[in-house]
Amino acid sequence: MNIVVLCGGVGGARFLRGLRGAIGSGDSITAIVNVGDDMWLTGVRIAPDLDSIMYTLAGVNDEERGWGRVGESERVSAELLAYGVGWPWFTLGDLDLGTHLARTHFLRAGVPLSKATELLGARWELGVRLIPATDDEVETYVVTDEGTMHFQEWWTKHRAALPARKFEYTDAATATPAPGVLEAIRDADLVFLAPSNPVVSIGPILAIPGIRGALAAAPAPVVGVSPIIAGAVVRGMADACLTAIGVATSAAAVALHYGARSDDGQLDTRNSTSLWPSSVGQSGLQGLLDGWLVDETDAATVPLLEAADIRSAAVPLWMRDPESSAQVARDALALAVRR
Amino acid sequence: MNIVVLCGGVGGARFLRGLRGAIGSGDSITAIVNVGDDMWLTGVRIAPDLDSIMYTLAGVNDEERGWGRVGESERVSAELLAYGVGWPWFTLGDLDLGTHLARTHFLRAGVPLSKATELLGARWELGVRLIPATDDEVETYVVTDEGTMHFQEWWTKHRAALPARKFEYTDAATATPAPGVLEAIRDADLVFLAPSNPVVSIGPILAIPGIRGALAAAPAPVVGVSPIIAGAVVRGMADACLTAIGVATSAAAVALHYGARSDDGQLDTRNSTSLWPSSVGQSGLQGLLDGWLVDETDAATVPLLEAADIRSAAVPLWMRDPESSAQVARDALALAVRR
Repeated sequence: MNIVVLCGGVGGARFLRGLRGAIGSGDSITAIVNVGDDMWLTGVRIAPDLDSIMYTLAGVNDEERGWGRVGESERVSAELLAYGVGWPWFTLGDLDLGTHLARTHFLRAGVPLSKATELLGARWELGVRLIPATDDEVETYVVTDEGTMHFQEWWTKHRAALPARKFEYTDAATATPAPGVLEAIRDADLVFLAPSNPVVSIGPILAIPGIRGALAAAPAPVVGVSPIIAGAVVRGMADACLTAIGVATSAAAVALHYGARSDDGQLDTRNSTSLWPSSVGQSGLQGLLDGWLVDETDAATVPLLEAADIRSAAVPLWMRDPESSAQVARDALALAVRR
Repeated sequence: MNIVVLCGGVGGARFLRGLRGAIGSGDSITAIVNVGDDMWLTGVRIAPDLDSIMYTLAGVNDEERGWGRVGESERVSAELLAYGVGWPWFTLGDLDLGTHLARTHFLRAGVPLSKATELLGARWELGVRLIPATDDEVETYVVTDEGTMHFQEWWTKHRAALPARKFEYTDAATATPAPGVLEAIRDADLVFLAPSNPVVSIGPILAIPGIRGALAAAPAPVVGVSPIIAGAVVRGMADACLTAIGVATSAAAVALHYGARSDDGQLDTRNSTSLWPSSVGQSGLQGLLDGWLVDETDAATVPLLEAADIRSAAVPLWMRDPESSAQVARDALALAVRR
C-alpha cells in the first residue's frame, strides 16, 4: 500500500513515526512536507519541518524538549550573538547547524531542495520518503498591525501574541510541486493530512499550484487527523493562526475548513498567495476530506461530520510515545479503509 | 608612532602581540593581513590568518595547539562529515565556525571584508587595527604534478608533501588594496614584515597591485623579521614553499629574496598572478628591505646582509610567549630606528 502524508513539523513527525510502526513490510510512506517555515539565517538555509521529521524518524530528536536534536548544544549560536549577528530569539543548535550547513552546501551547488533532502536523509534509516512540497522558496509571512514578518519571527520571537491579520505564502503562485509530489498523490492508495497546523503547515502545501487539484483527482481516500483536541491545540499556537482566518479552534471547525470532498472530484482550485478568505474556509469550499479522525473527547463531533459527508471516528489522539502514535495511525488507517 | 605590519597567521599573530606589548600608549599598530589562505568551505568564508591574529590578540587562541580557539570543539564538523559534506582534512571548530558564519553573514549582505573584519574585531580589545590586504577574493593556489589545488588543500591535506611547482594568486592582477592599506603604508613611521611565510603569507600581500609600489615609496624604514632560524622554519612548512620558488631555507636567502631597498625608491613593480621567477627572487629585485632581524644562531649572516645594504642584527627570535615576543618586537624596533 502506498501511503502519502501531508505534514508539518512535530505533529507530522510523531504521526509519521507512528505510521511507520503500524504499516506492513510491503507498504510505503511518502511524506510531503511543509517548507513555509524555511528561511535563510546568517547565510544558511533552515528547514525546520523537514529536519524535525528527519530527526524524529532517525531517532535522534529531543523527546523531552519536543524539537531539535537530543544532546544539543549552542556553542556556535553563542558566538554569533557575541558578534552581534543572528537572531537572538532563534535557537540554533550545533548539531542542527550541521544539517543546515550540509543542506546549504547542496543548495549553493545547485542541488534542488528535494534532492538535498534525499542526500541528507541517506545518512539515516528513515523508512519514509521525505519530499518538500516544493523546491521553490515559498515562505510563510504574517501580516500584523506592527508589520509583516516571517512566520518564524512571529511564532518564535512574538510567541504568536501579535494578532495575525493574514498569512501570505511568498511566491506560491509561481511555485511548482517538487518532483514526485504529484506522482505520489496520484499513485497513492491512501492520503493522510497529519495532525499539523492547518494554516501554516498544511496551508502552505495546499498553496502550491497543482497540489489541491491532485488531491481532488486522487483515487485514494483523503483522511485527516485532527490537530485540535477538546477545543485546544495539542501543541504550539495553532489557535492564533486559526483565529486569523476565521476558523474556530475545534476539531469540527478545522474539518469543515478543509471541507468534504465532493463525489465528482470538482473543486475550486484557484491558487492564491494569501489564504482563502475566511468565508471560503468556513464554508468548506476546499473540498478536501473523505474522513476526519477526532479525539475521544470530541466524540460528539462525529455525527456532525458524518452529516457533512465526512466519515469520522473518535479515538485517543494524544501521541505521547511511539506506541500511542502507532495506535493513532492504526485508527486513521481503519477510518480510511472504512466504506 | 604609526607602525604597519605586513603579516600572515600564527607568526604574524605572535609578533603583533609582542609588538602591542612593546609600544607606548601614543603608538598605533596597523596590521595588513594576508588573505591568500581564505576560502569558501561548505558555503562559509574562512579567513585563517585574520582569525589567528584576532584570536591571539583577543587572548582566546589555543596556545598549546598553536592555532584556533582555546576550548574548541568540533560538533558541527562531525555532523558535516556524517552527511558526507565538507573536507574531512580541514578542522572546523565550533567556536571558529561562529566567526566564519558571522563573517559570511556580513559578506553576503554586501559588506566588504575589511569592514566585516572591523565589525568582528569590535567584539574584543585587540589594540591593533586589522586590515585584509584586499577586499577581493585573492586565493593562493599551488601547482603540483598532481594538479592545481587551493593552498589549504596542499598545506593541510597533503602536508605540503607534494612538490610545489608554482604558486598562483587568483585574480590578484585585478585586485585592489583594501581601503586604508595604501594610506597606512604612506603614513607609517615604520613598516615591519612579520616573521611569516615569505611565499604564501607575505607573497600574496605583495601581489596586490599597488602595495609593492607603496612600500617602495614609503618614507618609513621597512624592516623584516626572519621566519627562518638556523636554516629551519620556525613552524609550518615554509621550506616547501621556498624550495618551489628557488629560495634556500635560510635567513640570508629570504632577506636577499626580498632584496635591499634602493636609495632612489625605484623598483620593479610588475604585478603578476604567479610568484616572481626564482631568478628574480634570488637576485633581490624586489628591493623591499631596509633591515632584517635574524636569530642569534644566524649571527654570521649579519655582515653578509650589511654588505648587501640591508642593516641587520642577531637576537633571540623564538617567540615562546608574550614576553619573548615583546623582546623580539623591541629588537625589531631598535633595528628599524638604527641609522
